[in-house]
Amino acid sequence: MARNYKAILQYEGTRYQGWQKQISTDNTIQGKLETLLSRMCGETVEVNASGRTDAGVHAYGQVISFRCTTEKTAQEIRDYMNSYLPEDIGVLEVKEAGERFHARLNATGKVYRYRVLNSTIPHIFERRLVAVYPEPLQEEAVRQAMARLVGTHDFKAFTSSKNRKKSTTRTIQDIHLERIGQEWQFTFTGDGFLYHMVRIMMGTILEAGSGKRSPESVEEAFLSGERKKAGFLAPAQGLALMEVFYH
Amino acid sequence: MARNYKAILQYEGTRYQGWQKQISTDNTIQGKLETLLSRMCGETVEVNASGRTDAGVHAYGQVISFRCTTEKTAQEIRDYMNSYLPEDIGVLEVKEAGERFHARLNATGKVYRYRVLNSTIPHIFERRLVAVYPEPLQEEAVRQAMARLVGTHDFKAFTSSKNRKKSTTRTIQDIHLERIGQEWQFTFTGDGFLYHMVRIMMGTILEAGSGKRSPESVEEAFLSGERKKAGFLAPAQGLALMEVFYH
Repeated sequence: MARNYKAILQYEGTRYQGWQKQISTDNTIQGKLETLLSRMCGETVEVNASGRTDAGVHAYGQVISFRCTTEKTAQEIRDYMNSYLPEDIGVLEVKEAGERFHARLNATGKVYRYRVLNSTIPHIFERRLVAVYPEPLQEEAVRQAMARLVGTHDFKAFTSSKNRKKSTTRTIQDIHLERIGQEWQFTFTGDGFLYHMVRIMMGTILEAGSGKRSPESVEEAFLSGERKKAGFLAPAQGLALMEVFYH
Repeated sequence: MARNYKAILQYEGTRYQGWQKQISTDNTIQGKLETLLSRMCGETVEVNASGRTDAGVHAYGQVISFRCTTEKTAQEIRDYMNSYLPEDIGVLEVKEAGERFHARLNATGKVYRYRVLNSTIPHIFERRLVAVYPEPLQEEAVRQAMARLVGTHDFKAFTSSKNRKKSTTRTIQDIHLERIGQEWQFTFTGDGFLYHMVRIMMGTILEAGSGKRSPESVEEAFLSGERKKAGFLAPAQGLALMEVFYH
């Protein structure tokens, strides 16, 4: 009998075309996992993630669910996956889940982190995990823009999605800034995020911090609902999905 | 007039054949730097490092010296180097140095760090910077082996060098262990290190920690002076040169 499993994954997104399987390439995280699990389970396995990460985006705590008929224990599944997955994808944990658990449909919130290196001196060891933004940042302006993004808003201006049917209202519970040397780490906690939403919020914060827009212009972006009123799309490589919440 | 410069470098050693220039390949850190600086200075530049790091070994604070005739300021030299060096080599600082400063001859001590991941779950984000050693380690045995290595000893058994003319006596001032989750970080401070010495000390410590040898066997290795009495050569990828001391 097929059982339902929940697993927690890490991956460095650098060399992948993102999470979602594509017909044109098998170079996706979903593709790698489905190929491996289908072989292990002896049947076609579909893997659902809490959400799709874009090309180049990393994950420290992506959650997936899948169904499989196997004699293996959850820990044996984890070890099997870790021995066959490429070195930039790892499985931290596999657990049997309730029959109805679905990694995307049951997710109630997420935490993303965005790492900015505010320096002209490159970061050698973490260069694949940080985005370089060399223009001087004013912390006060950065914090003002952050504060205006927190709360429940229509984030229509903050997505690259063209889907006009679904609601674009989301709640950002918190944006936290930590400065470590030349690095600025932004942690976003929210109930859900639209396509490109964290990267556009981040581009908006960076533009405010470097004096290219006023913190108040965030309101104008919300009111207009126009993509062009929000900031630039910050590079994928600075972004990582840290954690997914479930009830 | 040619001036003498001191610079501090970082590099991820993963894809290089080590520090030292070779005739058969230009894939060395020294080779990359000399090519770049010779172009910048318009003359053949020789770069001296505090010491040669092996293939795959990293540096957070390698020190080099070189002579060059240029109109550029020290900071302009740094920026020039950072714009042309590959993304896994970076220059933190360039300073004009005294006429007689030599990065290797004047070095009075060094700090190396060795990172061991004591787990069967792979480390995704820092996989190029840690060595995986999955066998369980006993901290007490690890610390006993560390303590026996500290001090002034003839480290003849702890080098792969075949040079029998030079002294193999060195002083290790300190070996410090820090445990962070599944990671064991060892920091070695000493007046100088022989070829492969840190990696062989590390192999010896790991063998003691996993019960493959007694901590006392360190003394036997010292007494015999035989390479085969010391531990295995721990992998290059866990090792990094952190700091070089000068008077």
